[in-house]
Amino acid sequence: MELANNTAEGIGQELDWQVPFYEQLHRNPELGLAEHQTSAAVAEKLAAWGFDVRHFGGTGVVGVLANGTGPGVLARADMDALPVTEATGASYASANAGVMHACGHDMHVVALLGAAKYLADHRDAWRGTYTALFQPAEETAAGSQAMLDDGLAAGIPRPDVALAQHVMPTEAGTIGTTPGPILSAGDSVRITVHGRGAHGSMPHKAVDPVVLAASIVLRLQTVVSRETMPGKFAVLTVGSLRAGATANIIPDRAELLLNLRTYDVDLRAAIMAAIERIVRGECAAAGSPQEPEFEYYDQYPLTSNDPEANARVAAAFTQAFGADAVYQTAPQTASEDFSRIPDAFGIPYVYWVVGSVPPETYRRAVANGTVDADIPANHSPSFLPAVDPTLAVATRAQAAAALAYLAVPPG
Amino acid sequence: MELANNTAEGIGQELDWQVPFYEQLHRNPELGLAEHQTSAAVAEKLAAWGFDVRHFGGTGVVGVLANGTGPGVLARADMDALPVTEATGASYASANAGVMHACGHDMHVVALLGAAKYLADHRDAWRGTYTALFQPAEETAAGSQAMLDDGLAAGIPRPDVALAQHVMPTEAGTIGTTPGPILSAGDSVRITVHGRGAHGSMPHKAVDPVVLAASIVLRLQTVVSRETMPGKFAVLTVGSLRAGATANIIPDRAELLLNLRTYDVDLRAAIMAAIERIVRGECAAAGSPQEPEFEYYDQYPLTSNDPEANARVAAAFTQAFGADAVYQTAPQTASEDFSRIPDAFGIPYVYWVVGSVPPETYRRAVANGTVDADIPANHSPSFLPAVDPTLAVATRAQAAAALAYLAVPPG
Amino acid sequence: MELANNTAEGIGQELDWQVPFYEQLHRNPELGLAEHQTSAAVAEKLAAWGFDVRHFGGTGVVGVLANGTGPGVLARADMDALPVTEATGASYASANAGVMHACGHDMHVVALLGAAKYLADHRDAWRGTYTALFQPAEETAAGSQAMLDDGLAAGIPRPDVALAQHVMPTEAGTIGTTPGPILSAGDSVRITVHGRGAHGSMPHKAVDPVVLAASIVLRLQTVVSRETMPGKFAVLTVGSLRAGATANIIPDRAELLLNLRTYDVDLRAAIMAAIERIVRGECAAAGSPQEPEFEYYDQYPLTSNDPEANARVAAAFTQAFGADAVYQTAPQTASEDFSRIPDAFGIPYVYWVVGSVPPETYRRAVANGTVDADIPANHSPSFLPAVDPTLAVATRAQAAAALAYLAVPPG
Amino acid sequence: MELANNTAEGIGQELDWQVPFYEQLHRNPELGLAEHQTSAAVAEKLAAWGFDVRHFGGTGVVGVLANGTGPGVLARADMDALPVTEATGASYASANAGVMHACGHDMHVVALLGAAKYLADHRDAWRGTYTALFQPAEETAAGSQAMLDDGLAAGIPRPDVALAQHVMPTEAGTIGTTPGPILSAGDSVRITVHGRGAHGSMPHKAVDPVVLAASIVLRLQTVVSRETMPGKFAVLTVGSLRAGATANIIPDRAELLLNLRTYDVDLRAAIMAAIERIVRGECAAAGSPQEPEFEYYDQYPLTSNDPEANARVAAAFTQAFGADAVYQTAPQTASEDFSRIPDAFGIPYVYWVVGSVPPETYRRAVANGTVDADIPANHSPSFLPAVDPTLAVATRAQAAAALAYLAVPPG
Repeated sequence: MELANNTAEGIGQELDWQVPFYEQLHRNPELGLAEHQTSAAVAEKLAAWGFDVRHFGGTGVVGVLANGTGPGVLARADMDALPVTEATGASYASANAGVMHACGHDMHVVALLGAAKYLADHRDAWRGTYTALFQPAEETAAGSQAMLDDGLAAGIPRPDVALAQHVMPTEAGTIGTTPGPILSAGDSVRITVHGRGAHGSMPHKAVDPVVLAASIVLRLQTVVSRETMPGKFAVLTVGSLRAGATANIIPDRAELLLNLRTYDVDLRAAIMAAIERIVRGECAAAGSPQEPEFEYYDQYPLTSNDPEANARVAAAFTQAFGADAVYQTAPQTASEDFSRIPDAFGIPYVYWVVGSVPPETYRRAVANGTVDADIPANHSPSFLPAVDPTLAVATRAQAAAALAYLAVPPG
Repeated sequence: MELANNTAEGIGQELDWQVPFYEQLHRNPELGLAEHQTSAAVAEKLAAWGFDVRHFGGTGVVGVLANGTGPGVLARADMDALPVTEATGASYASANAGVMHACGHDMHVVALLGAAKYLADHRDAWRGTYTALFQPAEETAAGSQAMLDDGLAAGIPRPDVALAQHVMPTEAGTIGTTPGPILSAGDSVRITVHGRGAHGSMPHKAVDPVVLAASIVLRLQTVVSRETMPGKFAVLTVGSLRAGATANIIPDRAELLLNLRTYDVDLRAAIMAAIERIVRGECAAAGSPQEPEFEYYDQYPLTSNDPEANARVAAAFTQAFGADAVYQTAPQTASEDFSRIPDAFGIPYVYWVVGSVPPETYRRAVANGTVDADIPANHSPSFLPAVDPTLAVATRAQAAAALAYLAVPPG
Repeated sequence: MELANNTAEGIGQELDWQVPFYEQLHRNPELGLAEHQTSAAVAEKLAAWGFDVRHFGGTGVVGVLANGTGPGVLARADMDALPVTEATGASYASANAGVMHACGHDMHVVALLGAAKYLADHRDAWRGTYTALFQPAEETAAGSQAMLDDGLAAGIPRPDVALAQHVMPTEAGTIGTTPGPILSAGDSVRITVHGRGAHGSMPHKAVDPVVLAASIVLRLQTVVSRETMPGKFAVLTVGSLRAGATANIIPDRAELLLNLRTYDVDLRAAIMAAIERIVRGECAAAGSPQEPEFEYYDQYPLTSNDPEANARVAAAFTQAFGADAVYQTAPQTASEDFSRIPDAFGIPYVYWVVGSVPPETYRRAVANGTVDADIPANHSPSFLPAVDPTLAVATRAQAAAALAYLAVPPG
Repeated sequence: MELANNTAEGIGQELDWQVPFYEQLHRNPELGLAEHQTSAAVAEKLAAWGFDVRHFGGTGVVGVLANGTGPGVLARADMDALPVTEATGASYASANAGVMHACGHDMHVVALLGAAKYLADHRDAWRGTYTALFQPAEETAAGSQAMLDDGLAAGIPRPDVALAQHVMPTEAGTIGTTPGPILSAGDSVRITVHGRGAHGSMPHKAVDPVVLAASIVLRLQTVVSRETMPGKFAVLTVGSLRAGATANIIPDRAELLLNLRTYDVDLRAAIMAAIERIVRGECAAAGSPQEPEFEYYDQYPLTSNDPEANARVAAAFTQAFGADAVYQTAPQTASEDFSRIPDAFGIPYVYWVVGSVPPETYRRAVANGTVDADIPANHSPSFLPAVDPTLAVATRAQAAAALAYLAVPPG
């Protein structure tokens, strides 16, 4: 595994083209499923480096580099930006009004390209098939599914493991990973319950959907308080409740928006069943004249690292960056749609997080207890990864993780 | 209708035997369905006066006096006492420890007997059939049904109207009546809801019946607040809720005791359906493993005076006692089982209330705003009607009401 | 009181100018506080008939006719139209797009003018002071207050009784009145409760206003179910509940719109105190970081007829229209701002309702059980009183009611 | 650390007296604070072995063995039995009707005595002060506090670390431990909320405590669902709710019994504050006429192993029993009062669990998925540790853990 060590120097050489390319992407952010320029630039580079380039799901791009007999590694980056107006003041700030790379996907793209070029440049050091996948529309949970719906699983060589990473507002130079759940499953539900409208002075002619919705909100609290094993992670939030418009009219319906986050697929299924059971039961109690409606949206799968794969990748990180730089992260309550891709192949995967805040800044905020106040988080108009050393670390991490599988054993 | 006026004098003559007989009954109270001595004494008197005496429902007694062609009038008194320890200090206080005529049924019995004797003594003044009915067990809502179950409806001549009265802690000498509802329907329900028990630290293995019962209690509030027409009388009380015994065990069931009072049979039916709907809906929402159980008990029918019959009887009262003595009473939230008898025959009925508090006492309490504090109400250990004038008024009222139907027109 | 009878004929003669004037008003409806043309036309007529004309509250007009020593009678009509697009198809339909006399105030104006002219023309038949008051903006509950705020109480002779009427979608030719409450008090409240917002996955950093608002809604049900005397009219409706906009963000506030209707000023005050108590208690239970806010609006006073005045006026109606035409109406759940005027003087008042549907149409709908479906109600784009006989009846009713106080006794 | 290895053989020799003494204790169980015979037998043995014996808290016994300069180790066993009727059928089953060692405290006593004798017999192998503490009344959470209240902290040499163990229905021969929380804090609360009683038909004269209690139950669900960080362990159960006795009387109070379990002292404090805040807020919302009452009982402290001490003891276990026998246990939801003793000294402690089911029996049940059904748990009338090898393992564990601190380094 000597090579992994050496990636440090190799990657350093990539920065010459990476930094300007990163600034170019940052300056030209594109929303999900509209990453046309980004996609074209990525495809052009991959092709130039000898990758077999394929397109899936509109703007999705995959480059396959077959390099002898060996394992298959798929590494993924997401490409889409957000509808946010940038306020970083960076020289390379968004030139696309109202759109911003506020979640660091531009960094993911350039780092993965850097690893891809490194592997293309050092084919003698590894054996197998390296697949670099650039996904659209992660922010809307639509991109990985769009690529799969467009034939991804049958359209590329089946890999043995999948890799992905995300920049986070933690100390730059550090990498966090964990066996098991690292990002939660996320599900949103729009529930419409039906009453019978009437003038506010004639409740006996109505079925009051305001009271019905209120009962549902209170009853849903028991999903976590009583139906979830104590200490097991689950969050069920009713983020919105809307019914009626005036004081003296009983409306005929109420709408609730729910968000669920879990780290366990069985618990997720049990809670979704409980939500429907509770809503239907409350509608029956109310004498609701019409069945409630459930519309699921913004559904993100669980991201749960394979323990064995995670151990292998974490060991490679430790070798590459030193033990002090690598830590076991607690699961995050954020969500991702990356895992749909390895799940479609039935293969293990590892997802890790890369710090992006200058170390002295981060440590000062920790010491002052002002991390939340001082460090702009993802999706903030002020979110801006420190290019040095974040880009080099992220690039090297992708290379080291891939080489943990692909590297030719020394000797 | 001259005769009705004359009842005043006639009734006065009855008091010679009525007062000692009332004191005898008061001294020897008997609980519901055990009114053996009372029943025997009543039957003996009726037979002596020429009534055709029949027995229904154990201790129930009916005396029928056929007196030519004319309407049939059924007048009813209840006979049972209460499990109360008398604290009146009366010379004729209960000699039966723990049992007391605390609701004035002894007065009802003697007044009805007085009217019966008056009618038996004045057969030339009326035509028709007079039926004096003495019912057991009013306090447990069981007596009138027991007589009906024992063949009452087929066992006596069908009357055209039914009459009943009750002494109340209002001014003696006054009589209150009203068209329509005068006493509420009353229904009690024992509801058992089922959960699944578990140790208090393992709610995810349980279905928590405490939370279920709490949800039911809150939801039941909407029966009156939302499902009942504003301004329409309905009371639904959860008088008891019991679940579990220790802090750290989730029990497997909860028991609720509900009481419902209404003045409208349709509303009563709608509310009883709503209760079952709400409880079943909440059990479904909770994932209850077993259907809830509903046990109805202490069910009293609505007492609602026929407007035409009420007008006729009220007019007779006005003639007999003067307009100042007769008032239109508001409906009471108390309940009675009398109406089952006329309902079984499908005939109209009139129920009225007779004051029993010495006028000066009552008026002073009203003036002081201390009625609740100073005047012992029915079921109190201190409840004791003023024999004079209550007994004479109640007797004369029964006679006057009957004669409103039976009297031979003057001239 | 012979004159009251004669009003029938007298009023008939007024119709010659009343009908075209009514059609003119109906064709030119004006919204509340903007009744400029209406107000001017009314003032012109009053002045022409010898009334002393005064203006209050912008478009409000009062005509005072002093006619010797005697009682003072104030009769009131409201003048404003509604923001409704007329769909009656009448030849005199609104020429003012989007505005319509959909509540019959034009009829009230012309009827009151008719009565005023009748009295002006027959000064020998009565003694006292007759005040005809034309009020703006009843629909927004602002008009009577605007006149009072502008000095009405000190600006006209103090009357002894006040009169007002309203056309209703019941049988034309009939008049309903009642002692005591005839229209409910109405109050709307906008309640804002404060939580602490957070991402939906971090409820422990939030105070969830959705749960808080739901608890408030359920708890408010007890205001009617537990705190209001059974059978006493009160309606408390939460017509609108709005909190949050997306599933995965816990919002920082919730807004509830409540409407309360009552027939009793003490109960109204008790319920308003209960609402505030419940909301504050629930906010305390939730750990709400900020006091809730209560904004009262659309507040209508109780309209409760003085029993003695009502008896006098109802007797006059019976004399004028016959016993069959006059009935005791049940209280309506609608609300009015008329009573603020007599309340400002501390005088009794009578408010009555006048039918406006052709008798054969109304009776057919009653027989078919299709009143709600077939008869357009007030505020409907199809609401249109039958001019004959409604206008004559309403005019005569205003005259007869005034003469019940003012008429010179016969002989 | 060679000696720790040798404890295996040494302990084997203790079994000759341990087994009959264990059977004697098991046959003569004594309830908490009444462990008179047990206490006397323990004290006699300790004195015979050269321990300085002291008594605290009635039946509590402490033996101190000073053996040169070195650390102080306090090892604790609990002595009390339970009010359970034994159903094991063992030859040495309880001879004390209705009382049973159903939680294995007899095993704890004999194992600790065995370790104490071993140390007394091998004073050349260690240096320091060994304190064997035998506590009454663990089952009622009263015993450790009783000893502290009686001067324990000032009455014995201050130790540097404390040790305790418990037999569990897992595979005999195994030992489980963990850094951090191993047993939950447990708190029970009796809450009395006050209403105002009234007849069931007069809710407006009452403050209904049934509705109040129901609101509290639902609101308390938010303590876990909204106020506790997702994934953090906390259980709040309302195990009992009792109010009223009959359907038609609104009672004047309700009583709730709550049980709380947590693994974090800050969260415990926050939840206890939240409970009081919610109850007081709901009482305010209800207009409760009297402050609620909170009575805390059955309060168990958190048992949370010091990570460093745990690592040291676990290493000793691994050396003594092999890596396969030692596992990291998940925190248990059971509670203990042991930690009050080290907390009184402000010293670290380690608590571990010892399996007690014959391995073949346990493994079969696991394979069949019938552990809950087949293996009697603590407090069951059928709970009976397998003496072989449980007693030897538990004895050796106490010795090995003590020697991890006390042993003279080899060489």
